[in-house]
This record gives sequence, C-alpha cells and structure tokens, in this order.
Amino acid sequence: MQKEKEIQQLVDSLEGYLHQKTKGDLHYSDLSKIFKRIIRLDEERFSEYIKRMPTHILGDILETFNERMLKESLHALSLKKMIGTIKKMDSDDATDLLQDIEELDEELAESILDGLDNKEQEEIQRLKGYEEDEAGAYMQIEFFAANHNETVRETIENLRKLKYSEELENITSVFVIGDYNNLVATVQLEDMLLFDFDKSFKEIISKRPEKYKPRYVNDKEEIEKVVIDFKEYDLQVIPVIDADNYLVGRITADDIYDLLQEMATEQIYNMAGLDEETEKEKNVIEIIKKRGRWLFINLWTAILASFVISRFEGTISAIPTLAVLMPIVASMGGNGGTQTLAVMVRQLALGEIDETNWSYQMTKEVIVASVNGVIFALFIGGITYLWVRDIRMAIIIAIAMVINLIVAGVSGGMIPIILKKFKIDPAVGSSVILTTITDVIGFFAFLGLAEMFILN
Amino acid sequence: MQKEKEIQQLVDSLEGYLHQKTKGDLHYSDLSKIFKRIIRLDEERFSEYIKRMPTHILGDILETFNERMLKESLHALSLKKMIGTIKKMDSDDATDLLQDIEELDEELAESILDGLDNKEQEEIQRLKGYEEDEAGAYMQIEFFAANHNETVRETIENLRKLKYSEELENITSVFVIGDYNNLVATVQLEDMLLFDFDKSFKEIISKRPEKYKPRYVNDKEEIEKVVIDFKEYDLQVIPVIDADNYLVGRITADDIYDLLQEMATEQIYNMAGLDEETEKEKNVIEIIKKRGRWLFINLWTAILASFVISRFEGTISAIPTLAVLMPIVASMGGNGGTQTLAVMVRQLALGEIDETNWSYQMTKEVIVASVNGVIFALFIGGITYLWVRDIRMAIIIAIAMVINLIVAGVSGGMIPIILKKFKIDPAVGSSVILTTITDVIGFFAFLGLAEMFILN
Repeated sequence: MQKEKEIQQLVDSLEGYLHQKTKGDLHYSDLSKIFKRIIRLDEERFSEYIKRMPTHILGDILETFNERMLKESLHALSLKKMIGTIKKMDSDDATDLLQDIEELDEELAESILDGLDNKEQEEIQRLKGYEEDEAGAYMQIEFFAANHNETVRETIENLRKLKYSEELENITSVFVIGDYNNLVATVQLEDMLLFDFDKSFKEIISKRPEKYKPRYVNDKEEIEKVVIDFKEYDLQVIPVIDADNYLVGRITADDIYDLLQEMATEQIYNMAGLDEETEKEKNVIEIIKKRGRWLFINLWTAILASFVISRFEGTISAIPTLAVLMPIVASMGGNGGTQTLAVMVRQLALGEIDETNWSYQMTKEVIVASVNGVIFALFIGGITYLWVRDIRMAIIIAIAMVINLIVAGVSGGMIPIILKKFKIDPAVGSSVILTTITDVIGFFAFLGLAEMFILN
Repeated sequence: MQKEKEIQQLVDSLEGYLHQKTKGDLHYSDLSKIFKRIIRLDEERFSEYIKRMPTHILGDILETFNERMLKESLHALSLKKMIGTIKKMDSDDATDLLQDIEELDEELAESILDGLDNKEQEEIQRLKGYEEDEAGAYMQIEFFAANHNETVRETIENLRKLKYSEELENITSVFVIGDYNNLVATVQLEDMLLFDFDKSFKEIISKRPEKYKPRYVNDKEEIEKVVIDFKEYDLQVIPVIDADNYLVGRITADDIYDLLQEMATEQIYNMAGLDEETEKEKNVIEIIKKRGRWLFINLWTAILASFVISRFEGTISAIPTLAVLMPIVASMGGNGGTQTLAVMVRQLALGEIDETNWSYQMTKEVIVASVNGVIFALFIGGITYLWVRDIRMAIIIAIAMVINLIVAGVSGGMIPIILKKFKIDPAVGSSVILTTITDVIGFFAFLGLAEMFILN
C-alpha cells in the first residue's frame, strides 16, 4: 500500500512534467532523483517513463545513472531516440555518455555514433582523443564567440539566433576572436551590457586592452592546473585554445565542481589503497583485484614486521609480557604518523606547500611529534608500571614510544615530499611506506631495548 | 647574488603593477604569490611594498596570507589604510579578514571596525552573527537587483552607475524583486540581453514565469546543502533570502570552489584524526592538544588490544611463534577495513548512498571482503607453512585471516552508516572504531584458535 502510494506520487510528478505543468520546476537532477526511486519500486514504470522523456533532457538524466539504471534505460530506448538524445547534448556530455554506453554495449555505441552526422561524429572523436588528464577532455565545444569587427548589436543578434536554434546555456562571457579565429579578448556580459551597441568590439577593446585580455588554457594542459586557475582567479569560464591558437572550446564552473570533488575522492581513495576509476566502474572482479593488489603489498610489510619480531623470539619466550605490550608502540606510531602524513599530502595537493618551502611545515610537525612523543611516553610508562609493576618495562616502553612517535612524525612528513620529488603522487603508497616504518621501528625499538636492558 | 637577482625580479613586477604597466596582467593571486616569495627573501621590501599596494586590491591579497605574513603586514600598515582597505572589500571577505585580524590583535580589529561607517559596521556584525555552517556566513551582501516595475533599460542604467561607484563584480544574473523587497525572479544576463529593453521585468516575466522562477536558499540553511545544490543544478550564483523572504545576499561559484575543497580537506583530516580548524590556525600548542586527544583515544584502544593478548600470555609463552605472527592478522584486517570504510564515508558524503539504499553497496563490500579473505588466507597459510613448517599454525592463521577480513569488511561498511544514523559525521571516529575491532578480533581469533587447537 505504502509502496503503491509512493509510486503514484512519483508518477504524478513525471506526468506533471510531461504535461508541462511543472516544467519550470523540474531540473534534470530532480527527474534523475525520481527515476532513481522508481527503479527500486517498479521497473516497468521506470522503462515506461524513460521512453517518454523528451530528448532535450534525457541525455542529462542518463548521465546521472549508475550502470544498472543505464543498462535498463538502453534496453527500453530505441536507437532512434538515443541518436536524437545524443544530438541534443553538449559535446562533452555526449562524449561521456557515449563512453559509458560503449562500456556496456560496444555495438550499440557504434550504431549511435553512425547515426550522427559527420560534424557531430568528428567532434566526439576529437574529444575522445584527449587524454584523461588533459583540459581538452573536459571542455565543451559549444561556446559563444564574436568576431572583433562585429558591433555589439550584431553580436547580440547572433546570440539571439543561436539561443533559438541551439541549446546554448550558461553564457557569461563573449569570446572575441580575430581574423584568424584566434582569441583576442574575453568580454563579460556584465561589461558588454554597458557598451555602446553601435561600436565594434575592436574599437571598444582597443581603449582598455588590459581589461579584456583573455585568460585561457591550452587544450593539452593538465586539467588539475586548470582547476587551480579557476580557484585562484575566481573564474566562471575559461576559453580553451589549441596549439595553433584557435579557440576550440570552453570549460565552465560546473565542470570544476565535478572535478574538485573527483580529485578529492581520488585522494581519499589513494590514501586508503583504493583505485578511484575501478571503484566507480562497479565491476566486482576488478575491485577485488585492485584492492587485493594493495592488500598484497600490505601483507609483505606485515611479514617484514613479523620478521623483526622473530629476531627476538627468545626474548619474548623469556618475557611473554613483551608480546602483550609490543603492539601499543607500533599502533601509536602508525596513528601519529598518519596525522602528519595526511596534513602533508593534503597541503601538497592544495599547493599550500611545495618542494621549496616545506621546511617550515616540517619543523612544526617534528615539534608536534616530539612533544606528543614525550607526553605519551609518560602516559604509557605510567600505565605499564601500574599494570605489570616492572619499572624497567615501564622505562623501556616509554623510550620506545618517544623514538617511534618522532620517527613517525619525520617519516609522515618526509615520505610525501620525497615521493613528490620523484614525481609520484604522494597520496599513493605513502601510507604503506609509513606503517612499514612505524611497525618495524616500533617493534625493533621496544624488543631491542628489552633484550638489552631486561634480559641481560 | 642569486638571491639579489630574484628580489630584483619580484620588485620589478611590483613596480610594473604600481605604475599600471602590467595592471591587466596581475591578479591579486599573482601579487599574493610575489609577496609570498618576497617575505622569504627580504622582509623590509615586503613591508615596503605592502604599504604601497592600493586599497582596492590589498584586502584580497591580505586574505591569502598565512598568520606570519598577515602579522607582518598589519605591523607595516597604518590604521587608516586598513580601514580604507576593509571598506573596499566585499562584505563576506571583509568579515573574514577582520576575523583573522581579531585572532592576532583584538584591539586593532576593534579600531578598524570603529573606523567604518554605521552601515558597514552593521553589515559585518550581521555576517558575523551567522553560524559557521549556515549559508549566510558565506554570502556577500553585494548583489545586483532590479525592481520588477523597472524597464530593462533602466536596470542597465542602474548597473552602469553601480559599476562606476562600487566594486561590484561577477554579475551573471539580475535578481528581480517585488514591491516588498521579496525575490520574484532570477534573470540571467544572457537572457536579459535579448529582451525588449523598453519593457518592464514584470511584463517580460509574466509571459514565461516558470523560466525565471528563482532558485534560492535561506540564510539559515546548511551550507553543505547549498554546495550540493550548486553541483546538482550547475549553478553560477544563488540568491540568499532571510526568514521574511527579503533578498539579503548571494553566494557565487568562487565561494563554492573554496567550500568544496575545504569540505574535502575536513573529511581527509577527520579520517586521519585531525581537526581542520585547528590545523589551519597554525597554533602549535592547539595542534598538539587536538592531535594528542586523538592519540589518547588510540592509546586506550591499543591497550584494549593488549589486554586481549594478555589473556593468552600462557599460550604465547608456550608457543612464542604466535607473537611473531599475530600482528599480520590484525594489520591485514585494519587495511582491508580501511578500504571499505573510505568508500562508504566518501559515498555517504557525496550523497551517492544514504541510509535508505546502502544495502547494495554493503552486499558488494561483503563479497569483496570475503573473496579477498579467502585469497589472503591461502596466501598467509602457505607462507606460514613455508616459514615455520607447522601445518596447524598455517591452518589457524588462515582461518583467523578469513574471519578478520570479513569482520573488517562488515565493520568498515556498517560503522559509517550507524554513525550517520546517530547524526555523527561518519568521517570522525570511524577509523578508530574500526581498528579497535580489527585488532581485537584479529588477536582474539588467532590466539584463541591457537589455544584451542595447538596448545591442547
């Protein structure tokens, strides 16, 4: 009953949208949310309404779907409808969606591509040609440009025509191009509104060329750099040019929102031993493999630590309390080091510190590690004494704790910087190196001191 | 020599800027970078040029400085100049900067505030009144609004006047207000350009009210929700209204870039046992305290694990090899669990999963954990056999490994969801709970099985 009611509600919203009653209210994100709820309740209704969605919004909805929902949708939709949908999408989104479809059904992707006209095919092929980390892979080729000889009035007329014929959205700036399709200026609409509409851009720009000097990126530039530019210069859009200085596309704020989140997810995943791309694809076998690879490395570092312990088997056999206490030193080292590591990795990623100015941060980290090392040495010394009533044991664990927490601080700070120097992403692998060090040093310091001062 | 040359280069850039030669080229971010390099080379020059920066850009530069540089700058700048600088800033940035100054020198912040006129003081006090997680705390009160009775031409004239008198930037939309200062529509400039300039907004909007229906946020709304809205609806700006429906401010794309990064940093820091606010303030004593608090919790969980081991002291004493091998099971559990934990925490934060639809992801996690559990059980069983030549030991460590990796997968998946149900941020504390579980279960399973099957 409850379920029927929920379905009815969702269906009502969709019907409302289809009959234009709520057209202004429902964004593709809202429709996507409705479909995500419907598929859990009633697959048939899901297919029925996916088929009825108009092409101009269907592509945006499909792009938000996970693998299962996309599969279901492709099953329901005709080839003709899919071709129409792709045609209506922005070039960058169309390319992304086609790539998602390709992963599910290569033949279908091929057929859709064949259904597009030559120009559209070329555009998509060009965008697909960019590497994943290149700016070009994130640009859309739909933008609004004006020739510098045009008057503002002519440009506004062109905009009017373009807006009626195409789905060109989010125009905040006009890109002004010269005689060779080269970018000569960027004019924000808020400035253009105040221009004399009968003058040409050339005339207007020549009066204050520095104000309209365009900030741009090259299509082969690293996308991470572009993201940093958006942030530093508070941009809303940036034009993309190719090696010949031709204006070829633009990257907009909404791309940057996605990229910022993706970059953060990637960093969090890397630090935890996960591969972002694999996790996203949701193929369980691949996930098991990639995660397993990481666990495999960890297995060997754990065995290395065991090997260190095995050197002290005789000592442990004589004083089994050592086995009880030894994980404490290693564990605290791992945690303390992880704190420093996280700060360094993140600050490096944000550009707050780099290879030239890390020493200030490093000094701070060593101070923090040393002070906490001493504090926790006193703590654990006291607790150990109260627990096992052995002053030598208490002193030894305290000394091992100071050593390991300082080693942890120094390692946690230096590992990311060293990796960065070798052009390795500091988020990848740094934590496994760190815990190897803190485990080995932790066990070695504690058991070694015990062997020296208690056993003999 | 090298140093002198670098200083000269930086000084040349600043002189170029001051003499307007490079005015269009240098953004406040560029100037900030120059000052960051100068202070490391020549503090006197730093102070000299900070004093010469014009007020309209000085505030933006100061906002990018760290504590030490801000201190140095405040030392160099006169009260009058600081007041002039704050006056030129956007209200939200001015509030932020004043709060930074307050932390360094309460009296100075007071004096600057006193130097502002009543209206400015009120604005800053109002913005300071918002909680840190409220949308109002991130809005700027400078925006461009038009009364619905105005014609487009009148509005453009108003924009012209406003742009000459004030530093109003990044206007992509006009907020149209009704007779009671209530928000009635948002019109993007790209649409307004195509309007009949002699018609009033009221006339134009009434024809397609759904197109101009404004998306807005309440000033008391959670800022994280606003960030999600920007991302979902591809927004560039959103108007902020108060409880009386008055339009009170706007939040722009550049605020969202910062927020997205800050939210990611906070999450990474929380997972590593760090407090983002504290780390940012750079006060070493506070950092030691906050990190120490986390290590303190960890200390007790490590002691809990030791306590579990201590229950098996007799067994270890009889078979010291157990002490050598036992950290492997615990360590693998910790790593496997951390993988699952990171996925769940991040997916929850991104809204990809929530309390109602986590079971699909959870099923996948359990499958991954189980398969890898079996694989690594075989691995470690084999390695153990080759190492210690004891088949019973090999079987026991293998069984303990399967158990702990499955427990790790289930815990890593469930802990964030349970925390979320109790309205606790899943990034905070989840990893300490997880490693407590994987350590305790890891040691208990391995040593317990050994006691049962080897000792007896």
